[in-house]
Amino acid sequence: MKKVKIAILGMGTVGGGTYDILTKNIDIIMKRVGIDYEISAILERRMEVIDAHGADHALVTQDIDSILDGDTDIIVECLGGIDFPVSIMKRALENGIGVVTPNKAAVAANYDLLREAAEKGGAELRFEAAVGGGIPILTTITDQLAQNNFTEILGILNGTTNYILTKMTKEGEDYETALKEAQAKGFAEPDPTADVEGIDTANKLCILMTLAMDHYVNPRTIPTTGITGVTPEDIEAAKERDSVIKLIAKAENVDGNITYEVKPTEIPMSHPLAEVSNEFNAIYLNGDAVGELMFYGKGAGALPTGSALVADILAIMKDIAK
Amino acid sequence: MKKVKIAILGMGTVGGGTYDILTKNIDIIMKRVGIDYEISAILERRMEVIDAHGADHALVTQDIDSILDGDTDIIVECLGGIDFPVSIMKRALENGIGVVTPNKAAVAANYDLLREAAEKGGAELRFEAAVGGGIPILTTITDQLAQNNFTEILGILNGTTNYILTKMTKEGEDYETALKEAQAKGFAEPDPTADVEGIDTANKLCILMTLAMDHYVNPRTIPTTGITGVTPEDIEAAKERDSVIKLIAKAENVDGNITYEVKPTEIPMSHPLAEVSNEFNAIYLNGDAVGELMFYGKGAGALPTGSALVADILAIMKDIAK
Repeated sequence: MKKVKIAILGMGTVGGGTYDILTKNIDIIMKRVGIDYEISAILERRMEVIDAHGADHALVTQDIDSILDGDTDIIVECLGGIDFPVSIMKRALENGIGVVTPNKAAVAANYDLLREAAEKGGAELRFEAAVGGGIPILTTITDQLAQNNFTEILGILNGTTNYILTKMTKEGEDYETALKEAQAKGFAEPDPTADVEGIDTANKLCILMTLAMDHYVNPRTIPTTGITGVTPEDIEAAKERDSVIKLIAKAENVDGNITYEVKPTEIPMSHPLAEVSNEFNAIYLNGDAVGELMFYGKGAGALPTGSALVADILAIMKDIAK
Repeated sequence: MKKVKIAILGMGTVGGGTYDILTKNIDIIMKRVGIDYEISAILERRMEVIDAHGADHALVTQDIDSILDGDTDIIVECLGGIDFPVSIMKRALENGIGVVTPNKAAVAANYDLLREAAEKGGAELRFEAAVGGGIPILTTITDQLAQNNFTEILGILNGTTNYILTKMTKEGEDYETALKEAQAKGFAEPDPTADVEGIDTANKLCILMTLAMDHYVNPRTIPTTGITGVTPEDIEAAKERDSVIKLIAKAENVDGNITYEVKPTEIPMSHPLAEVSNEFNAIYLNGDAVGELMFYGKGAGALPTGSALVADILAIMKDIAK
């Protein structure tokens, strides 16, 4: 059988992590999945990042057309932004090219458009890395838990805010101090707005609700409160109630009436989510068959997020092989 | 397309839970998976359990041959025991019938024999429910995490022993008192040997290692110590070291050298497994790409275990449809 051709668009943190896993773990992947593949192109301008991963210069191109109109089987979209990557993903899907992406903002805002393009082109769109980074939550919901009516989703979905709230809780820091520390450690962006205002979390809740409750809403319509207003006094008051404040994405389904919001929430210390600290993420679900479940892991980072992208690549490869 | 025909062998707790999910949630399953199915036969002698689930008497048979030699597509093996269910599963697989089972003892002791039968008959053998009950851990390892080299597996895999150890830890009970309470609440069998001696946990570790580390060993060769020797003094001493005693299944892979054992182990309170209490199970993994992951949920019970069996049924149905 021919090798599956994979093109990586953008060799930043996550694209680079994906490259590293696909090259370093090729033996174990081949043994377990039994399908041969190659990285056939890398869309990137910065040759220094190409060299940092030891990639072959001959794979590098700045010509997206050569990738989308050539014999590419799967693109790994790690471009960042919304409009440009959406246009690229739409074109790829319509051309019958499988798409994997960690881009939660692009997927949440353009879910229907991308699904239609996938249907039109008979191609697969997968975005496991968009929620929970390395935690394989989305495919688990759609594949292994499809027999459940989910009544509750609670998520700690943003590592930046969880890191800041953990510092405020465990070390008594105020918000500004904890934010600066998160920025110094690389857990927060220089402009942290999308994280601290809860926008990133709302995008992820949108995707979780769509898959677990079959209910899509535009993420901008999700009532969203970030953590910038959380004070040391709030945190102390929660402690006195044997609770901890977390930025929680919540969706509930009560007899078909679905409600949802993102906001700082007191979680009792007896709840499995209470001990999820620092940059870790976790998703807690309640299904009518399976009962309570929690998935815990790294919500960001080159290799954890790359792991989720590679999982999606392997899923598409298996379908191509069939 | 024709309806997929599912036969349930044994309508006890887990078989009954599977029946309930397949019948109660048929609408959501049809909507999400898009494949029509029916329960075509139930192998069971006790008509009172048939009536308890409201099943049609016309489906009930005591004739296994009519199931294995008829047009059954999938059997749900919930018979219990080892030799008889293994002979049934082998025959079904060789006949091209898909098999799903929660029977960890049968799978762990006869892994190669059953895999060979599956290959010979071109049929699928799935046993998601065998480890972690409702937690979708096995398919997640084989499907979404195949790109990882796992260096560490730590599992709390037995609800009975975790319940007993939790009572000893939180309420200061001794082993005998906690065991009696577990038996009174239905969390322990009248003969608790397989649970409290760690045999059940060793069977599950065998399956986890086989899938996550590609390394099968007969479960009887796994060094195994149960919890019958754990004293209130041990638990107090652990507390003083800010730790808690759990019955831990552990496998490590250090540069290809795989070691494994089951024994009561001190877990620091800072570890994600420390707070896994009562009858809950959890599996903690460390993969070279994904990093730390933990999966938490109900390790037993009619509906949680039934959820895992139905997940396997749906996976086989999807492959039949392709």
